[in-house]
Amino acid sequence: MSSQPARLGEQRLARAALTYLAEPGDPALGALLAICEPAEVLAAIKADMLPGTAPGCGDTPASRAALQRALGRWRLRLAELPDESGVAAARRDGIRLICPGDPEWPGGLDDLGRARPYALWLRGRSDLHRSSLRSVSMVGSRAATAYGTHVAGEIAADLGERGWTIVSGGAYGIDAAAHRGALVTRATTIAVLACGVDYPYPAGHDGLFADIAASGLVISEWPPGRRPARLRFLVRNRVIAALTGGTVVVEAGERSGALNTARHAADLVRPLMAVPGPVTSAQSAGCHRLIRDWGATLVARAADVIEMLSPIGTAEAPAAIPARTQPSDPQPRDDLDEDSARVLDAFPARGHVGPATIAVDAGVDLDTVLRCLGPLAAYGFIERSDTGWRLRRPGPPGR
Amino acid sequence: MSSQPARLGEQRLARAALTYLAEPGDPALGALLAICEPAEVLAAIKADMLPGTAPGCGDTPASRAALQRALGRWRLRLAELPDESGVAAARRDGIRLICPGDPEWPGGLDDLGRARPYALWLRGRSDLHRSSLRSVSMVGSRAATAYGTHVAGEIAADLGERGWTIVSGGAYGIDAAAHRGALVTRATTIAVLACGVDYPYPAGHDGLFADIAASGLVISEWPPGRRPARLRFLVRNRVIAALTGGTVVVEAGERSGALNTARHAADLVRPLMAVPGPVTSAQSAGCHRLIRDWGATLVARAADVIEMLSPIGTAEAPAAIPARTQPSDPQPRDDLDEDSARVLDAFPARGHVGPATIAVDAGVDLDTVLRCLGPLAAYGFIERSDTGWRLRRPGPPGR
Repeated sequence: MSSQPARLGEQRLARAALTYLAEPGDPALGALLAICEPAEVLAAIKADMLPGTAPGCGDTPASRAALQRALGRWRLRLAELPDESGVAAARRDGIRLICPGDPEWPGGLDDLGRARPYALWLRGRSDLHRSSLRSVSMVGSRAATAYGTHVAGEIAADLGERGWTIVSGGAYGIDAAAHRGALVTRATTIAVLACGVDYPYPAGHDGLFADIAASGLVISEWPPGRRPARLRFLVRNRVIAALTGGTVVVEAGERSGALNTARHAADLVRPLMAVPGPVTSAQSAGCHRLIRDWGATLVARAADVIEMLSPIGTAEAPAAIPARTQPSDPQPRDDLDEDSARVLDAFPARGHVGPATIAVDAGVDLDTVLRCLGPLAAYGFIERSDTGWRLRRPGPPGR
Repeated sequence: MSSQPARLGEQRLARAALTYLAEPGDPALGALLAICEPAEVLAAIKADMLPGTAPGCGDTPASRAALQRALGRWRLRLAELPDESGVAAARRDGIRLICPGDPEWPGGLDDLGRARPYALWLRGRSDLHRSSLRSVSMVGSRAATAYGTHVAGEIAADLGERGWTIVSGGAYGIDAAAHRGALVTRATTIAVLACGVDYPYPAGHDGLFADIAASGLVISEWPPGRRPARLRFLVRNRVIAALTGGTVVVEAGERSGALNTARHAADLVRPLMAVPGPVTSAQSAGCHRLIRDWGATLVARAADVIEMLSPIGTAEAPAAIPARTQPSDPQPRDDLDEDSARVLDAFPARGHVGPATIAVDAGVDLDTVLRCLGPLAAYGFIERSDTGWRLRRPGPPGR
């Protein structure tokens, strides 16, 4: 951030401030940001005066009144707004901010239109844009059964092995099983929280989130330190759906919050999938409803999921419901960060290689190698084999 | 049969003979029966000479040659053909024959076109036409799991309680569980066999078939005494599908014969349904494929099944895939057999009544009452309540 030009820095700081003042998905703020610069909106909040010069903004008495009320709502939190040093303190804790238009901003989120996040707080070392290119959300009940957590873990691990990023909500039950399944295969996994990325919720997932951040990302629309709240989970769910190429519901009761994520995926015309289970299990009733009444595709294994997924945020917009998807073509090496480029260069032209060998050849430490392998696979440069990793051959990729 | 006019009796006996001579679904016999009387076909077989006067029958040299070869094939079994007293002996064993055009012939079978059964052998006291008006087939693996047999039994019992006839193939596993679930609630159930209705196959189902015949029907296209054979099960499956308003596959492996029944149901534009199960169970893989790839509707309970079913063989042809079905309107009482009419007359105008009370009031024995209740419910005259049975009120039926 410090290397950005002053003007951009001002807008970024304004967006950071807005995540403190307004709840994500606030229609009034979405309307304002569609026509005003973030710094202009922040100044309006501080001055308690609408930016009247903005064309089309609040141009009827009724909407002006609604926006004025919104200003009052946001002003209530002005006292909580940290100064610039507060944001810097977050950076010292390994937390960073990304904004729309940043190279790391995931294109899928722009499909949310005015409900797009104002900005995102990130904890972890992966590149969010790159990680979400080939990604799938796996969500489900907190009160999962042994069957559900088993299946979630297996499918997540299989998808991770094939280079897909697993996105979930970091909750107990299915979410945790999906994250852990991805971690087992050292795949990138992203937890999208409904509280600050440093907030200890749910209790007992501190270690899980640390593991996720070490190789993937913990992200949130809420600023550091912000508590979760009931409605925040529902608002958060639209980001899980929009960030990914498709959503898989693994287990869900008839009133599970996972059905809310499924609704967002359907609204965003993202492939919606559900894992069936015993009809005698209440925790599968929601999945069966999705398949029966919502038109969700029944998926029983990772291959079923991949068949439905399309890469998102790439030049080619994803088809609504692609019949079959091929991994995207390898991207130019010039796009890679320094570590990834080094790791990729260390690959032999032929044959398989293990992470330790790569670390020695690339002159980087093992953790760095492990962190880079997933994105390199997701980008199509390398692929996993039975005995390690290898460069992916040009031409139609095989599975 | 003996009360039929002589001419009709001749045709019935010819149809009975054809079930001995030809395998069901033989295209050559189907072609001949489309244009010749059964007795004419039988005479041609005995004389080893095609009925050349029949217009359009074998009118090209190639098709005449095929039909001539078929005559030779059917003549091989002439020695097995019983005389008229043999058919009479079957009647003494409680076995009867029904033919297309009989009042008891189920209209759904006519949808099979030239693959329609030549005739059906029946064992049991129910009326096949009436029993199949509101019927559903439930089929699945012989090697069923405890989950599958549990679910098959529960759904069959619930459907039976609501007046639906359960049709299945009498095999071990899912079939037996479906039949037994229906028997528990004293609903009508029909076993469609791939051997004679008196043939002891599968071993160990003698008692089950006796129970089914006591309140429902054991039926077959093959004559008494005929053994089962591998291909006969596949040929039989089209009758299960055609006889009923829809087909439910409860458990099926990837290569289960139940998928063959499902294919027939789909070909006949009958609603096709499948019960999901754990994705970790090989016995549910076929069901999941039906839902995922064949467009079968996921059903988890009896209410889901009923929503998909339409009565068949009634004046109104069933819609291909009706969105929601109401039980058909009550039929005129004049159509009822004597026992059913007596039982129905014994119902009080208001309030609930038990089978024993009805038996006393109607002056018939308890078994007769129990046998009549299912069809009367299926016909819409009565309905089950928490404490017994009651007359169904006119107007939109409730569930």
